[in-house]
Amino acid sequence: MHHSVAPVQVKRIKVLKETTEPDLLAVEEPLEIRIGYGQEHKRREKSLSVTMRTPGNDLELAMGFLISEGIIGSVNEVLSIKHCQRVKKEEEAGNVVRVELSHQLEIDLKKLQRHFYTSSSCGVCGKSSIEAVQVSACEPITHGKPVFDRQLIHELPDKLLEAQNVFEHTGGLHAAGLFDNNGRLLLMREDVGRHNALDKLVGAAASRGMLPLRSYLIQVSGRASFELVQKALLAGVPLLSAVGAPSSLAVKLAGSAGMTLIGFVRNNRYNIYTGAERIRLPQGAKVPT
Amino acid sequence: MHHSVAPVQVKRIKVLKETTEPDLLAVEEPLEIRIGYGQEHKRREKSLSVTMRTPGNDLELAMGFLISEGIIGSVNEVLSIKHCQRVKKEEEAGNVVRVELSHQLEIDLKKLQRHFYTSSSCGVCGKSSIEAVQVSACEPITHGKPVFDRQLIHELPDKLLEAQNVFEHTGGLHAAGLFDNNGRLLLMREDVGRHNALDKLVGAAASRGMLPLRSYLIQVSGRASFELVQKALLAGVPLLSAVGAPSSLAVKLAGSAGMTLIGFVRNNRYNIYTGAERIRLPQGAKVPT
Repeated sequence: MHHSVAPVQVKRIKVLKETTEPDLLAVEEPLEIRIGYGQEHKRREKSLSVTMRTPGNDLELAMGFLISEGIIGSVNEVLSIKHCQRVKKEEEAGNVVRVELSHQLEIDLKKLQRHFYTSSSCGVCGKSSIEAVQVSACEPITHGKPVFDRQLIHELPDKLLEAQNVFEHTGGLHAAGLFDNNGRLLLMREDVGRHNALDKLVGAAASRGMLPLRSYLIQVSGRASFELVQKALLAGVPLLSAVGAPSSLAVKLAGSAGMTLIGFVRNNRYNIYTGAERIRLPQGAKVPT
Repeated sequence: MHHSVAPVQVKRIKVLKETTEPDLLAVEEPLEIRIGYGQEHKRREKSLSVTMRTPGNDLELAMGFLISEGIIGSVNEVLSIKHCQRVKKEEEAGNVVRVELSHQLEIDLKKLQRHFYTSSSCGVCGKSSIEAVQVSACEPITHGKPVFDRQLIHELPDKLLEAQNVFEHTGGLHAAGLFDNNGRLLLMREDVGRHNALDKLVGAAASRGMLPLRSYLIQVSGRASFELVQKALLAGVPLLSAVGAPSSLAVKLAGSAGMTLIGFVRNNRYNIYTGAERIRLPQGAKVPT
């Protein structure tokens, strides 16, 4: 059995029928991300984040988190990532990841404090004031290219769903998918938390040397929050598409950063909130308006 | 216009049609919760949490957060709750709430550290280690009574949806509803984050002297995570019902605390994961199995 699902006995109720039968649940467990940093003769450790995640792709999640929260600028700043072998309690086994950062990397402790905690569906935790939730270091996405075919967007959620093995079983997992501009799914990651799914995806892409994701798009299964836009922005992706609704702050951030933000991709419809210039008709096609 | 929605221009794409028209977004903005605590001659302030929330019912959100995170045991420990008038920057106006706690209340600073941050969809943030996400102080829900009619559960999501004014406009808000054992909706609160919706609901119920919620049930619009179960447990509610899937840790916690946990309430079906003894057929009715 896949380690991201857990068995359960469930009592199923229909209007005129009830049965008790086995079922599967999406696993949710805490993951602690620790970093080792500082110069060689003066090495220090810090617990950076505890997030409720679905086990699996933990190392990618840690890598993606460091990138999408702006703690590191590239994978080259990471010496190693692995599960901690020495943990205090049995239940921590497999649930602590330690990332060794480059000796040369200067860590702003105050910035770390801001990122100290995260959650299964939000990356805003750990910001030490309202001011701190505002993005400061995000580079704007260059306007214009790349351009994505208008029809291609409609097909993204189904392609993502097809790739979700675990979803089939539990119905309980969010997904994030990386697509090229031919609509080909390159990478997909899942989690109980949509932020973790995106972090895993960014970490997987980073490990493959694909960052910044300037010629790709990301499709997510849920809603588009401020934090998802911020994470996508730090990975350099010019287009974020969501099955659900965006929030006001998500649209504001995407607009100011030049990112294309799409929502409600379902039932052969979608809404473009910002950056509509990246969505084009195929050459020669005409649309009655 | 309601302050929890914001206008936006949206480009709507259908397969053979596109239009640009005004639309509404669910507003997402940070809320900082600060507490004043300590004895009269030695009063101190602490920033407890920054959460991304939908403006509206902020004071209930702050009250509910303090209760559902176990920081206070009852509303009697709160002297006052209000929006801060003195804020550093204009964008903070309306986004900072200060709660004056009883002079007698002893605050465990280490515990506060654990709760320092929260998020729009998770309350786990701010736990200082994996160990800390485990509930320690939750009182188990007494098994057995109250009992809820089996048919009643099917009707909860529709009743919740009918009450969601804002949802009609944006499609982007989670909801939590408090029902009595006749299936009557007593209170409903909304937010971009499901945790905030639940905190607002708990805060609203607390302000009305309804805590602990031992004879009620709560219906939520999304999935049931570990943190939602934990929050519901601290409010004393014996039954939590979700439209979506529960996670493994949610089922584990509900089971160990004697809470009834129901998921996938849709299409005239639902699943009972724990505490099935609280769901009964109406007297005299028989179900073919």
